Amino acid sequence: MPGSLVGPPRPRDHFPQAAGGSTGARLTLRGGGTRSPWPAARPAPSTGPLPEAVVTTQTDTELHALARQLRVDAVRAADAAGSGHPTSSMSAADLMAVLLARHLHYDFARPDHPGNDRFILSKGHASPLLYAAYKAAGAIGETELLTFRRLGSRLEGHPTPRRLPWVETATGSLGQGLPVAVGTALAGQHLDHAGYRVYVLCGDSELAEGSVWEAAEMAGHEHLDHLVAIVDVNRLGQRGPTRHGHDLDAYGRRFRAFGWHTVEIDGHDVAAIDRALGEARATVGQPTAILARTLKGKGVAEVEDKEGRHGKPLPDAAAAIEELGGDRAVHVAVARPPAVQVRHPERRDRVDLPRYEVGDEVATRDAFGRALAALGTARGDVVVLDGEVGDSTRADLFAEDHPERYVECYIAEQQLVAASVGIASRGWTPFAATFAAFLTRAHDFLRMAAVSNASVNLVGSHAGVAIGQDGPSQMGLEDLAMFRAIPGSTVLHPCDANQTAWLTARMPDLDGIRYLRTLRGATPVIYPPHEDFPVGGSKVLRSGDDDRVTIVGAGVTVHEALRAADQLTEIGIPVRVIDLYSVKPVDRETLREAADATGCLLTVEDHHPEGGIGDAVAEAFSDGSPTPRLVRLGVRTMPGSATPEEQLHEAGIDAASIVAAVELLVEHEITPAGAGRV
Amino acid sequence: MPGSLVGPPRPRDHFPQAAGGSTGARLTLRGGGTRSPWPAARPAPSTGPLPEAVVTTQTDTELHALARQLRVDAVRAADAAGSGHPTSSMSAADLMAVLLARHLHYDFARPDHPGNDRFILSKGHASPLLYAAYKAAGAIGETELLTFRRLGSRLEGHPTPRRLPWVETATGSLGQGLPVAVGTALAGQHLDHAGYRVYVLCGDSELAEGSVWEAAEMAGHEHLDHLVAIVDVNRLGQRGPTRHGHDLDAYGRRFRAFGWHTVEIDGHDVAAIDRALGEARATVGQPTAILARTLKGKGVAEVEDKEGRHGKPLPDAAAAIEELGGDRAVHVAVARPPAVQVRHPERRDRVDLPRYEVGDEVATRDAFGRALAALGTARGDVVVLDGEVGDSTRADLFAEDHPERYVECYIAEQQLVAASVGIASRGWTPFAATFAAFLTRAHDFLRMAAVSNASVNLVGSHAGVAIGQDGPSQMGLEDLAMFRAIPGSTVLHPCDANQTAWLTARMPDLDGIRYLRTLRGATPVIYPPHEDFPVGGSKVLRSGDDDRVTIVGAGVTVHEALRAADQLTEIGIPVRVIDLYSVKPVDRETLREAADATGCLLTVEDHHPEGGIGDAVAEAFSDGSPTPRLVRLGVRTMPGSATPEEQLHEAGIDAASIVAAVELLVEHEITPAGAGRV
Repeated sequence: MPGSLVGPPRPRDHFPQAAGGSTGARLTLRGGGTRSPWPAARPAPSTGPLPEAVVTTQTDTELHALARQLRVDAVRAADAAGSGHPTSSMSAADLMAVLLARHLHYDFARPDHPGNDRFILSKGHASPLLYAAYKAAGAIGETELLTFRRLGSRLEGHPTPRRLPWVETATGSLGQGLPVAVGTALAGQHLDHAGYRVYVLCGDSELAEGSVWEAAEMAGHEHLDHLVAIVDVNRLGQRGPTRHGHDLDAYGRRFRAFGWHTVEIDGHDVAAIDRALGEARATVGQPTAILARTLKGKGVAEVEDKEGRHGKPLPDAAAAIEELGGDRAVHVAVARPPAVQVRHPERRDRVDLPRYEVGDEVATRDAFGRALAALGTARGDVVVLDGEVGDSTRADLFAEDHPERYVECYIAEQQLVAASVGIASRGWTPFAATFAAFLTRAHDFLRMAAVSNASVNLVGSHAGVAIGQDGPSQMGLEDLAMFRAIPGSTVLHPCDANQTAWLTARMPDLDGIRYLRTLRGATPVIYPPHEDFPVGGSKVLRSGDDDRVTIVGAGVTVHEALRAADQLTEIGIPVRVIDLYSVKPVDRETLREAADATGCLLTVEDHHPEGGIGDAVAEAFSDGSPTPRLVRLGVRTMPGSATPEEQLHEAGIDAASIVAAVELLVEHEITPAGAGRV
Repeated sequence: MPGSLVGPPRPRDHFPQAAGGSTGARLTLRGGGTRSPWPAARPAPSTGPLPEAVVTTQTDTELHALARQLRVDAVRAADAAGSGHPTSSMSAADLMAVLLARHLHYDFARPDHPGNDRFILSKGHASPLLYAAYKAAGAIGETELLTFRRLGSRLEGHPTPRRLPWVETATGSLGQGLPVAVGTALAGQHLDHAGYRVYVLCGDSELAEGSVWEAAEMAGHEHLDHLVAIVDVNRLGQRGPTRHGHDLDAYGRRFRAFGWHTVEIDGHDVAAIDRALGEARATVGQPTAILARTLKGKGVAEVEDKEGRHGKPLPDAAAAIEELGGDRAVHVAVARPPAVQVRHPERRDRVDLPRYEVGDEVATRDAFGRALAALGTARGDVVVLDGEVGDSTRADLFAEDHPERYVECYIAEQQLVAASVGIASRGWTPFAATFAAFLTRAHDFLRMAAVSNASVNLVGSHAGVAIGQDGPSQMGLEDLAMFRAIPGSTVLHPCDANQTAWLTARMPDLDGIRYLRTLRGATPVIYPPHEDFPVGGSKVLRSGDDDRVTIVGAGVTVHEALRAADQLTEIGIPVRVIDLYSVKPVDRETLREAADATGCLLTVEDHHPEGGIGDAVAEAFSDGSPTPRLVRLGVRTMPGSATPEEQLHEAGIDAASIVAAVELLVEHEITPAGAGRV
């Protein structure tokens, strides 16, 4: 079944009904009170009684009042913070008001309710509007609204799920909300079957990002009719007008071409907004884009539809609030989601990993693929995403066994990672795999995934010059640098099949962004099937009392190091060899022992010399304690096309190069324990 | 003039006519000979007389013969190499044949001819077809065709301009050819005014990449009617069918929505191809996409339109060649370009840089913008590209003075970098600027730009937590790691206005990828206007005989280090301070002197601890010589929203944190010259 989630979803078991779900009524109207009906998850408002209470009902007048108050609170929040994006918030206030009052189903007391609709603020700089909405919905109070910028509060400049439980994903780098939402909607329609809808509020400027069109393509092709993109076409970007101004059809043509249903409306006409959202709910088989003509800074003449008003508090907040009708207490009763039945995927503790015999020759990418398939059998929560190279990464071995949990993202690496983040946000365990080189395409998404504290597993195959013939465009030579610099990441680079299988199975239990780097070509199995490989550990493969130098490698260079060690032993130069399969966190203790014993560490990596194993080892000694001599071999040339062996030699990271480097070091009188240091 | 190249191009001077240009005839027919008419740039064919000569003229029969021979040579090249993508080459052979014989104007003896049309193979894996075409055009011989994979030859797996003068840009990472071509076409239509056309051969699979739609958007909006995308819709990707198979209109709708003219044809009908290319040439005000229905592996029944035949030599090359009609000598006389008049932009040796007084407070981003404007006045070849944040990066200061050389790319960082690469390929000097954080979006393009050996200047503003309130999504905290790991790159991070101005002016004279990192907030001017800042150098700002520790910073942390040094001096701990403005290449000599003198280096950076200044300093000692104690301070937490001062303190990289770290180091008995080492 090309071009789709492979295979139909499996039938789902019935699970205990989620507590607290409403009866499915779309909207519960509540009047009069100034307190939220959802006290559980909400800090109490810190101010006293509010000056006036407005009841939001279904009348358009009351929707206008809600929208006006969202604008007032956005202005107040930015004013209190002394920074922020009030004008970008004001353009979307009517859209947000109608969504909250009439369409969204969300239990703010239970952000983990499986039936909750999902709302993603793709134009993340409009956070003042988001906080205003949370306040109107009773989720936060006055104090939180007015201190959203403060360090240490749970709120911040651009919303992240780290600090706010209702935030689905970190935004603030434009063009990311929709791609992540596609992942969330995929989870909803193809994995959870929970019926929730996913609403994304986009800016018009961000539609210039290609990632938006990767998302549009996938959503259209996957018929994600529970996904609704609401585009706030306010015509003004940061430094001036957008390409298309208020030409709604320019955006409409594009979305329709990608298979979407579109609705073009006046984004300040609450009745039109309501109809459009209703139309989206009634649309079957297609996602809907609501293209809303709006005015930036709407409601305050001094800034409305004016250039040069992006990203700063209003010049006179008090006057603006007065112009908007004053500050009033407006509460909106967001409908709770209907009861849904979900199941937790089956999960066995034991993974029947494939086992390899020492001495066999196996590519670590093959070992990864087989381990992933086995992991998928043990854990029903594992979902695999492919960038149209599953036959190369060997993610396709998972597809053979678990087609219902295999997502083909085609050649769109930003969407590959974004979909993983969205799927992870619904509690699934995604593995996304492509060539290591092409994961660079998703660097900004990986960075933001870390800000989101997302739990995603990335696998990059075809590491380094060892791939051989295909030339530098296909070689992952900067992936270690990229992943090491992601906060809280784990970076693993196994050298044999059993090690790869073991690490693959352990990845889901780690925190944050986890990266596994695999090899194209076969390498000898050097570890028995029963061996453990703790994350943060390493393996000492050669060691003796008289070791003159320690060689540190990972992946293919471990095997080169072992060959070099044998040759060096023959000529009377004993060396230590460390397999640094855990590049981050790095095994400081073992490295330090080796440094104490040999005085010199030679790192060898199939990666550019910056940011990889050499730097990881150097960082292990960056705590002020004594540092050994450090020498690094890495890929300093621009590779061409050649056999793997020729490539490793040309790059100076093969056994012969290691032998030469060690001989040079020994000539320069490196002796054990650094006694010979100059 | 929103949404366009700002301002009309300036009138061009007349320049000496390029020698060797033809009279503009579209096609020069040549018959009989088996030798190329362009000996100058071409290695002599290494084989003897060829078995049969076929003259390519305008007849469709001869076009078929040319296309068949392109297939034969693609099969032979992959067979000789033992790897490659013959089936992806065979689908496009008719397209290539008609382009070469009837539409392309190119002087293979003079790849630098300013009137040459440009051809970009976006589906870079179809390199066997490219080499077959070069052979048919007489640019390479039989030996080169059959050894295109060999290391040391000028050819390689995926074509790069490093080794082949006719290659415009490195491809092989899909979805990059069209974005770069947009830059080339922009240069042609808005800068060179040389009349050349830009042809891009795309695959269908790669249209899933968002970067293609960033390019489509820019090309449509900029009315690049000299740009022609030829899409080889062969329906099969690497691991199976594409999303849209042979549905040409699925692609047509998308391109038309983005403002393109489209033509849908049978890609094996040479007359239809010819008409389509003619239609493209006749189309005014719009780029053209020719959507060609083709069969992968066309012409050989065993592989034609079959899955599982991607990226490998044909199973029986001899039989395939026979099925294709046998190996024949077919030469195509590619028309030479018409004479064009170009001018070399004016260039003065002296740049009147703005000068700042020591003690003034100036943001380095402002200094960059002013220096860039001054550079643009001195050098007419400087072109500036903005990612819709010119008012933040201050690239807009250039736009004020030189609107005709300012390109607005909107929020599309892949296109921003790709356009720079395309513009650079035509001899201009591009500066592309956006937030440092958002350059991660273009990581794969930066990587490939290095493979292309492109000369581009990148500027990332809003570095680090020092930006303050806007939160982690806006903070460049991994940019140094990304740029350091790019081969041959230069990474600069100035700390004051005069230094920034000096380095900005010197960037165009460097090789490869150059990166300048700027600060949002104002910092004190500490260098006088006349000071030099050699790339690869550093500045020692505090130094004495009794220094206990060396503090190494760059950018904002230089100022924190100076404050810390003052405080430490007061409490009797003299320290050395180094401004490491050249992060790559790094000033090993000065660092080593400091290590010898103080025994301990403390690096302080507004960047994650991996891949940045700490690693750069460690790398300086990675040559086996004695290593000092190294300690690094960097951003290890996930920042929230706070003032710059709070952020620096929270991250542990402010003066107080430096003082505390130094005190701790001194307590542990670090003494000059490392004498106190444990």
